[in-house]
Amino acid sequence: MQITQKGRQTWLFDGPVGIIGQAATCGPREGEGPLAADFDHIFPDLRMGEVSFEKAEQRMEEYAARRAIAKASLTPDEIDIMFAGDLINQITPSGFTARNLAIPYFGLFNACATAMEGLALAALCVASGVARKVLVAASSHTCTAERQFRYPNEYGSQKPPYSQSTATAAGAAVVAAIPAPVEIKAITVGRVRDEHITDPFAMGAAMAPAFADTVQIHLQERGVSPDYYDLILSGDLGHVGQDIARELFQLQGITIADEKLGDCGLMLYGASTKVFSGGSGCGCAASVGFGHIYRLISEGEIKRVLLCATGALLSPVSSEQKESIPAISHAVALERGE
Amino acid sequence: MQITQKGRQTWLFDGPVGIIGQAATCGPREGEGPLAADFDHIFPDLRMGEVSFEKAEQRMEEYAARRAIAKASLTPDEIDIMFAGDLINQITPSGFTARNLAIPYFGLFNACATAMEGLALAALCVASGVARKVLVAASSHTCTAERQFRYPNEYGSQKPPYSQSTATAAGAAVVAAIPAPVEIKAITVGRVRDEHITDPFAMGAAMAPAFADTVQIHLQERGVSPDYYDLILSGDLGHVGQDIARELFQLQGITIADEKLGDCGLMLYGASTKVFSGGSGCGCAASVGFGHIYRLISEGEIKRVLLCATGALLSPVSSEQKESIPAISHAVALERGE
Repeated sequence: MQITQKGRQTWLFDGPVGIIGQAATCGPREGEGPLAADFDHIFPDLRMGEVSFEKAEQRMEEYAARRAIAKASLTPDEIDIMFAGDLINQITPSGFTARNLAIPYFGLFNACATAMEGLALAALCVASGVARKVLVAASSHTCTAERQFRYPNEYGSQKPPYSQSTATAAGAAVVAAIPAPVEIKAITVGRVRDEHITDPFAMGAAMAPAFADTVQIHLQERGVSPDYYDLILSGDLGHVGQDIARELFQLQGITIADEKLGDCGLMLYGASTKVFSGGSGCGCAASVGFGHIYRLISEGEIKRVLLCATGALLSPVSSEQKESIPAISHAVALERGE
Repeated sequence: MQITQKGRQTWLFDGPVGIIGQAATCGPREGEGPLAADFDHIFPDLRMGEVSFEKAEQRMEEYAARRAIAKASLTPDEIDIMFAGDLINQITPSGFTARNLAIPYFGLFNACATAMEGLALAALCVASGVARKVLVAASSHTCTAERQFRYPNEYGSQKPPYSQSTATAAGAAVVAAIPAPVEIKAITVGRVRDEHITDPFAMGAAMAPAFADTVQIHLQERGVSPDYYDLILSGDLGHVGQDIARELFQLQGITIADEKLGDCGLMLYGASTKVFSGGSGCGCAASVGFGHIYRLISEGEIKRVLLCATGALLSPVSSEQKESIPAISHAVALERGE
C-alpha cells in the first residue's frame, strides 16, 4: 500500500485501512442520552460490579476491547498490537487491559485526543505492514477523572457553567489493511496550541484553537474543502468551545455549514443540562466515533466524517503551578469503504 | 524501504533508519557517575534555575530535545513529529516541551519503557514515509517521581535495599530514513507481563520477566543468537532485577555471556550505593541509550546493541488498591551504520 505524507502533518492511505470490529460502552447517564442505541453495552451503575471506580473504568475499557475483537471474529492472540490510553494517572486502566488481553502494547497519552492518536498509529501499523490486526482503545469515567482533576463528585462542589463533565464511556476498534464498511483514508497529526488560558474549568476554550488549527491544516494539506465531509466533529469542546471554534473558522476564512459541525461531547448527552457546557474525556470521541459515527457511515447514512479528538494537556499540578493549558487535536478521516 | 513483520512482535527495516542527532542531559548525581563524559549537559543542581521540580524536568527534557535537533543541523520546524513521554501525571513535561517546540506531537506512556516505545514508532514513521524527521524524547527527575510515586526525598523516609532511585536525566534523538553512524535495524514490541508482585518498591523484580520475555521473543523472531549482539541492555532493572533476569534466561535455555548483559540504571551510577539496587526512570534508558551507547556504536567500539527499556505500569492508586505490578519492555536493535 502507498502511504504518502502531504505537507508536514497529513498522511494519506491509498489502499484500504478498514475498521473490522468496533465497540462502545458507557455508564448510566450516557445510556439515557440520544446515542443509547449505538452502545454495545450500557453499565447500569457507576461501580460496574467493581470495588473501586478505577477498577470499574478498567472493566469498561476491557469490555469494549473484547467486544470489538469478537465483532471482528478474532481472538486477542490474533491482535498484534494494542494502542490504548485514558485519563487516570499512569493510564492504569489501559495497562491492566493490555495485561489481561496479553496483546503487545503501546500506551498513549494525549488527554481526550488519545483515541484518534491511537487510531492514527494503528492505521500506520497495518498500512506499513508491521502488524496485521491492531486494537485501539480509550476510556474515561466521571468518578475517576473528576476526583483526580477537580473534586470527587460526592462533594457536590459547584462548577461554573462553562465547565464540562467527564463522560463515563469507552470505545475500541480493530484495524486491518483490508476493505471494510468504514475505512481510514487520511490522518492529520495535531500540534500543540496554547492560548494562555489558565482556568482549568475552561477546557473547551483551551481546546478550540487546537481543533480549528488541525481542521485548517487538514483541509489545506489534503486539498479538500469542508464540503468534502458530511461531518467535521470535535471530540469534546462543549457549547463554549464549539462557539469559539466557529469564530476561529470565520477568522481563518473557512466556511463550514452549521449542520456539518458537531461535537462528540454534545452529541453524547443531547440537550441535557446536567453536563454543563458538554461532556469531555477520552471516552467521548472513542465511544461516539466507534459507536454512533461508525454506524452512520457503515449504514450509508453519511459517507465521510473528519473526527478530530481534542485534548487538554494540563494536570492538577501544572495548573497549581500557574501554567497555562496546552491543547492538541488529531484528525482522522473516516469514510465509507468502496 | 521494505518494512517486514517477523512473527507477531518484531519489525525489520531493510533500509537505513538513522539516528541523525541525539543528546543526553542529567542532574548533579548522574553527572558524578562513570558516564559523565557522554552527557551534553550536566545540570549542577536539581532545580535547574526553575521554581519547581516539575518545571526543572520540563527544562531538562526541552534542553535535550533542542540539542538533539541542533546536532542534526535542523530547526524544530523541520521536525514533522515528536514522540515523547515521562513519569509525571499527564506527562506534562513532554506536553509543554511539544508546545514550546511547536512540533506535531504524540504523547506516550509506557513508564520507563517510553523512550524505546518512542524510538520504535519514530522509526516506523520515517521508514513508512509519513514523516521525514521525527524527534523522540523522554525524561525523569528524582524529585518529581519520588514525590509522586513514593515520598518527597526531603522526608528522608527509609527505602528497602531492593528499591531503586529515579534518575534525573533526559535523552532525545532525531530519526530519519537516511544512513547514519547508528541505525535502527529491528524492533520488538513488548507485551505486558505480570508475576503478581505487589510491593511497589520491588520494581526490578516486577520488570525482569518482561525484559526476559521480550529478549527471548526478539531473538526467536529475528532469528539471531545472543552472540549477534555486543550488548543486551535492560532499562532499569537494577541489581535485583538483573539477577532475576539471569535466572529467567537460564530457565528459558538462553545463554548470554555475563559481559554482554547490562542495565542502564546500573551503568549510570557505577558502584554508587546511594541508589539502592540501581537507577530507574524514563530518563535512564533515554540518556544512556542516546548518550553513552550512541557514542560507543558511532565510534566503532561496539557494533550492535539490543536496548530493551523496561517499564512498571503501576500507579500509587493501583498499588493502594492492591493491584499487582504489570511490566513491559520494548526492544530496539541499534547497530553501526554501513
